[in-house]
Amino acid sequence: MDNNGFCNDSYNSGTSDDELLDLTGTLEFPDDVPPMNHDYNSAVLNNGIGNRHQNGAGKLMDLMDETVPGVGTYEDFNTIDWVREKSKDRDRHREITNKKTQSTWDLLFSVSDAFSGWLLMLLIGLLSGALAGGIDISAQWMTDLKGGVCLNGFRYSHEHCCWSSRETTFQERDKCPQWKSWAELFGAPEGASAYVVNYLMYVSWALLFSFLAVTLVRVFAPYACGSGIPEIKTILSGFIIRGYLGKWTLIIKTVTLVLAVSSGLSLGKEGPLVHVACCCANIFCYLFTKYRKNEAKRREVLSAAAAVGVSVAFGAPIGGVLFSLEEVSYYFPLKTLWRSFFAALVAAFTLRAINPFGNSRLVLFYVEFHNPWHLLELVPFILLGIFGGLWGAAFIRANIAWCRRRKTTRLGHYPVLEVLLVTLTTAVLAFPNEYTRMSSSELISELFNDCSLLDSSKLCDYANANVTISKVGNGLSNRAAGRGLFTAIWELCLALLFKMVITVFTFGMKVPSGLFIPSMAVGAIAGRLLGIGMEQLAYYNHEWDVFKGWCSEGADCITPGLYAMVGAAACLGGVTRMTVSLVVIMFELTGGLEYIVPLMVATMTSKWVADALGREGIYEAHIRLNGYPFLEPKEEFKHKTLAVDVMRPRRGDGPLAMLTRSGMTVGEVEALVDDTSYNGFPVVVSKDSQWLVGFVLRRDLVISLDNARKHQEGVVSESCVLFTEHTPSQPPNELPPVKLRSILDLSPFTVTDQTPMEIVVDIFRKLGLRQCLVTQNGRLLGIITKKDILKHMAQMANRDPESILFN
Amino acid sequence: MDNNGFCNDSYNSGTSDDELLDLTGTLEFPDDVPPMNHDYNSAVLNNGIGNRHQNGAGKLMDLMDETVPGVGTYEDFNTIDWVREKSKDRDRHREITNKKTQSTWDLLFSVSDAFSGWLLMLLIGLLSGALAGGIDISAQWMTDLKGGVCLNGFRYSHEHCCWSSRETTFQERDKCPQWKSWAELFGAPEGASAYVVNYLMYVSWALLFSFLAVTLVRVFAPYACGSGIPEIKTILSGFIIRGYLGKWTLIIKTVTLVLAVSSGLSLGKEGPLVHVACCCANIFCYLFTKYRKNEAKRREVLSAAAAVGVSVAFGAPIGGVLFSLEEVSYYFPLKTLWRSFFAALVAAFTLRAINPFGNSRLVLFYVEFHNPWHLLELVPFILLGIFGGLWGAAFIRANIAWCRRRKTTRLGHYPVLEVLLVTLTTAVLAFPNEYTRMSSSELISELFNDCSLLDSSKLCDYANANVTISKVGNGLSNRAAGRGLFTAIWELCLALLFKMVITVFTFGMKVPSGLFIPSMAVGAIAGRLLGIGMEQLAYYNHEWDVFKGWCSEGADCITPGLYAMVGAAACLGGVTRMTVSLVVIMFELTGGLEYIVPLMVATMTSKWVADALGREGIYEAHIRLNGYPFLEPKEEFKHKTLAVDVMRPRRGDGPLAMLTRSGMTVGEVEALVDDTSYNGFPVVVSKDSQWLVGFVLRRDLVISLDNARKHQEGVVSESCVLFTEHTPSQPPNELPPVKLRSILDLSPFTVTDQTPMEIVVDIFRKLGLRQCLVTQNGRLLGIITKKDILKHMAQMANRDPESILFN
Repeated sequence: MDNNGFCNDSYNSGTSDDELLDLTGTLEFPDDVPPMNHDYNSAVLNNGIGNRHQNGAGKLMDLMDETVPGVGTYEDFNTIDWVREKSKDRDRHREITNKKTQSTWDLLFSVSDAFSGWLLMLLIGLLSGALAGGIDISAQWMTDLKGGVCLNGFRYSHEHCCWSSRETTFQERDKCPQWKSWAELFGAPEGASAYVVNYLMYVSWALLFSFLAVTLVRVFAPYACGSGIPEIKTILSGFIIRGYLGKWTLIIKTVTLVLAVSSGLSLGKEGPLVHVACCCANIFCYLFTKYRKNEAKRREVLSAAAAVGVSVAFGAPIGGVLFSLEEVSYYFPLKTLWRSFFAALVAAFTLRAINPFGNSRLVLFYVEFHNPWHLLELVPFILLGIFGGLWGAAFIRANIAWCRRRKTTRLGHYPVLEVLLVTLTTAVLAFPNEYTRMSSSELISELFNDCSLLDSSKLCDYANANVTISKVGNGLSNRAAGRGLFTAIWELCLALLFKMVITVFTFGMKVPSGLFIPSMAVGAIAGRLLGIGMEQLAYYNHEWDVFKGWCSEGADCITPGLYAMVGAAACLGGVTRMTVSLVVIMFELTGGLEYIVPLMVATMTSKWVADALGREGIYEAHIRLNGYPFLEPKEEFKHKTLAVDVMRPRRGDGPLAMLTRSGMTVGEVEALVDDTSYNGFPVVVSKDSQWLVGFVLRRDLVISLDNARKHQEGVVSESCVLFTEHTPSQPPNELPPVKLRSILDLSPFTVTDQTPMEIVVDIFRKLGLRQCLVTQNGRLLGIITKKDILKHMAQMANRDPESILFN
Repeated sequence: MDNNGFCNDSYNSGTSDDELLDLTGTLEFPDDVPPMNHDYNSAVLNNGIGNRHQNGAGKLMDLMDETVPGVGTYEDFNTIDWVREKSKDRDRHREITNKKTQSTWDLLFSVSDAFSGWLLMLLIGLLSGALAGGIDISAQWMTDLKGGVCLNGFRYSHEHCCWSSRETTFQERDKCPQWKSWAELFGAPEGASAYVVNYLMYVSWALLFSFLAVTLVRVFAPYACGSGIPEIKTILSGFIIRGYLGKWTLIIKTVTLVLAVSSGLSLGKEGPLVHVACCCANIFCYLFTKYRKNEAKRREVLSAAAAVGVSVAFGAPIGGVLFSLEEVSYYFPLKTLWRSFFAALVAAFTLRAINPFGNSRLVLFYVEFHNPWHLLELVPFILLGIFGGLWGAAFIRANIAWCRRRKTTRLGHYPVLEVLLVTLTTAVLAFPNEYTRMSSSELISELFNDCSLLDSSKLCDYANANVTISKVGNGLSNRAAGRGLFTAIWELCLALLFKMVITVFTFGMKVPSGLFIPSMAVGAIAGRLLGIGMEQLAYYNHEWDVFKGWCSEGADCITPGLYAMVGAAACLGGVTRMTVSLVVIMFELTGGLEYIVPLMVATMTSKWVADALGREGIYEAHIRLNGYPFLEPKEEFKHKTLAVDVMRPRRGDGPLAMLTRSGMTVGEVEALVDDTSYNGFPVVVSKDSQWLVGFVLRRDLVISLDNARKHQEGVVSESCVLFTEHTPSQPPNELPPVKLRSILDLSPFTVTDQTPMEIVVDIFRKLGLRQCLVTQNGRLLGIITKKDILKHMAQMANRDPESILFN
């Protein structure tokens, strides 16, 4: 019941208490910040003295913390109220602006406050870039460790080892005497036994790495598993998962990401890098009061961090920013756009300074194509788009079905065993095939590559006689496939099948796992195969009408590498449903506007095909699987229901739980709170005339009443609770009332009962509401929360409304 | 009083009736579409029969049009209600989706409806690209016409003429015997008299072009003047200016843009191209019901068109999309992002197919730099940023002051004379200086250019002895300034001064005028001068500590072209306050991520400096000058006022004009409408218990009552007006009531009186409201319109609240 492959399962079900304990026992929660008062009209509770005129913003905050600890904060697994958070920040900002003329210190404080956002971005960029560089270098080294060691130094990777060797020729640049495979090291005789030794070592290392990864994740940071993007999307939309972006998650995710990638599993590091960058951002937020204490401001920073993650993953800063804008972010003001861009650039340049790929390139897959594409080639590109869409939709279905099975059956009880089994299968099947043995990113690199004359790859093994003839120019013309290419084709077909199947089982296991690279690998293989096919077709049939004019004899007219690239974009598009950001990332890889059109056509086709088969991308599907309260900003609400159909109480339910602005006692309020589990209560004029006065949150109410009982003299259950501004005159010998005006939100959002739900949904999305009150002719009728909306939407889509788990 | 240099002045003041007549007389208004019913609960008025079940969407629309013509449309110079428009579209979409299973025809209709957006984008891209190409070619030819003619053919431009000539060497590629200057043509003797003849011809042509431009604008399409971006921003935010994007504006703007650019005035074509693209979009919207009848949907298309405009102006599709997102658009859903990108690409490729620059390049200024920049160079880049910011702020102030003067004094009564005078001054002063005589875009091209050995430009005239020594590599090293360079420096200084002054007077005249190119020119000159200065400093002082290590003797370490580029970005940033889009546009020009950092540093500095001196960019300043109702989405609302302080009626005003849901007669309602000028009226339960029921718009009310009087039998002033669903039982001999439930908006937005204005402003911005009702404990208290908010904001900023002119 507790293993859906996502970290969140630890709180999905009540059965996994041990894991939850684990989590709360070993992790510190950076999110658990000292609380602060939130109300715009905030006067210090209980003593009624306004605190607006105290000196020193820090001091002010402290004072407020002291008076009502906890008011204005959120509980774990709850949704924030964006409007409240933004008001809080505006208050803070106003405070600082007003004071900046008072003293030099205040002026300095105001300036430093204004620039703290930029400083934060700089720090995030630097740390994320450095971490990404470290991950790249370590993963490279450990991946090579599966094959052998360097005698010059244990710490050298294969490529690094042979760089320093003089006996390497350019053609055979990955062969040098200093690099020993395990068979050579153990002195196994050449031939079959050497193969077996290498095979065994490969599998053993893979198992060791994946075992370490899954164990570390389980023991130290359960949140470190998976890609993290579904959770980050949910967090950015206003949900709170404490510890998800904490320092333990960061450390463990960084380490286990290296292990998982090195183990040769069919997973990538792109999604997890976004998670890592967000962790960095969250941790750095602790340095600045502005961001530490405000959930909305922190989410702005996290949006920028998501851009940073993609920027370092692909070396594509603009693509990263657009990815954050299109795919991840919920609230993305223009200020954030500009800052994200800055952070993404800093990160990209930090990564380049570290130079993990050893080629001074910013980008993961650098490609340079020499030939333009022909209009007729759009047909195969569209075919690739269709393939990408079909595969994307199929993958999502299969993966979700498998994850659901893992979540609901006994299968999920043995995550370590599962990881080991999948690793074993992957390693055993992958080793014999050259294209699955190499890491996915190397594979993609090779597939994207345009064959040049000096290439020793099997993919570039064209019939030799022709090669020598056509040495004019940089390209190869007259390409009849050679023996090597035929082998490569078979191996690629097997690799394609293998990757398509194994990725379904890999994504969602309890190790860090990204989906970008495996999807791109599938697409790149399919694309390259189609490209080679087209090339051979054109070579053998250049007299056909379709090829005449642009593909005459001896001309080098088809670039299989471009097909691979288009295929990669199509598959990634089918799985994630990204559009602009995907095209821009790919554009940043090639740097040529020319190739945007093929990419665009394929991405568009792929999205349309995939959308026709299932509306959700993989991240949305996982969000739904886990029951997160995420209100998709892209999807239109299509039904014709009204607010009155969705609000609580429903017809037949009891009356709405509400408070009156005066006349209730502490005991009555506490009883109401205890009897219900609502997150907040509307406050009305009186029981008889239910005109809405305001709204008070359960958490604030409980904390304030507790506080009053503890610190205010003479508060008993019979004391009056007042939400009014002025205390009604009362006999002096009566009990002093508990004044709760300061926690009352006097501007709750209201809609009329006749408001179409499409407008209500729009309001919730755009303003980031947590709840909204429903009135009819001014009279309070009910309440709609985000959860109600999500449940209603699930119901309208014929899904179980109880699948929404959190508030 | 009526000439502020912007087209809008024709409705700014009551004095220019002649122009307004002109306008309404000669132009057709494509915006004036057949109206349609809007309400979600729409039942056909008067007969009470629901029309939801009629077949054929088109038929349905027609029927609705017939019944209540005009309901749901807007008057000129009014603001649309985004929520209403979006609801309308969702209704339409639901209708089509529900029906698509009924017949093949309906299915086809549904599919074509889904794809109409893409088709529209394709058409906009194609036409805009073609128009941009035509404008480029004609402007080039007419600019050259000022200097001379081609003997091979009158229609050839200078460069084109010499291409076909064989007697041209590469060094002297712009000299060929076929190209005759006017002096040569008229047989004037060499020397002074030839110079005078050329001078006179240059000035005459310039005057002729500008006279034609201003006359055409005045006679045929007053809206065609200016850059158009402030108006487009306002339109996109929901304002209606009929005819501003009509076909006459398109034709005249295209023609006069060519004339204005060719006349040599200090203006560019970038802003106007955005206007042209938006006109194309608006006109094509007429082909599709979906867009023709819905103001919100049309604005989505216009947002994409703005991206297309910048895409064709600079050959920067991604930059264009970001420009639209950052600078122009108000409502930019992700779907629009993707479509904009598509349209921008189509336009860019259409332009490339036309190939107006004759170099197969997509971009306006193609640059390739060979040297990396050094970290210490950030100091001059920051200096350029400061210059850009200072100039930007100064320019905005000076230009606004001048435009205000034009608007308020007699100066504005003679727009033709003004244009002729400015053209005369420009031409007379520009001709003697080589750098002002050439068109601004040629100047920028030359300034961006990195000197290569083959360059014949004066800017590349380094001391010759050294050049021959250092012919190694592609660059020039050991650059001591030669005589030509010294001349160039002086000429550039004069050109800088000239451009800085004349642009202030040019921008805002009654001809199409963009600001991108002039700002960039100013910045490029300043940057190049600083670059040359740095270069010479480094050359003569390479033993200084700062230059050691990266700028040793003989090394080619400073690229003056890069400085020009950075300067251009800084000045453009200072004027427009663009950030990301500016950097991305510049990045697309160079294609190298390396140079993003200098650009970013300069843009950032420039924005900060300029913002410190004045918060508004040039477009916002012009919007404010013209009193458009534009709610800036970027600026935070900083004050602590509450809704109750802003709403009408103010304290001391009379009571709020409102209707009751029953009990009022037609005569009473008409009297209320006649007595007030409000745009809408809240409907309450009764005069005594003012609980809010709904909201009805003035226009809908007037039209419906007129309609009832005309078409419904027995309607007299004493007839009852009913906003309720059920007719109260009444004696059979009484007059039949007029039922207006269908025009009643049952879900008006409400806020409580205690809501902080910052939240109200946020709601207005994010939801695109036109008005919002204010309640206190459920009771209707007042109303806040967009205009009230803008007036309040003006008041809080110590400006005249009456400067907001429109609703």
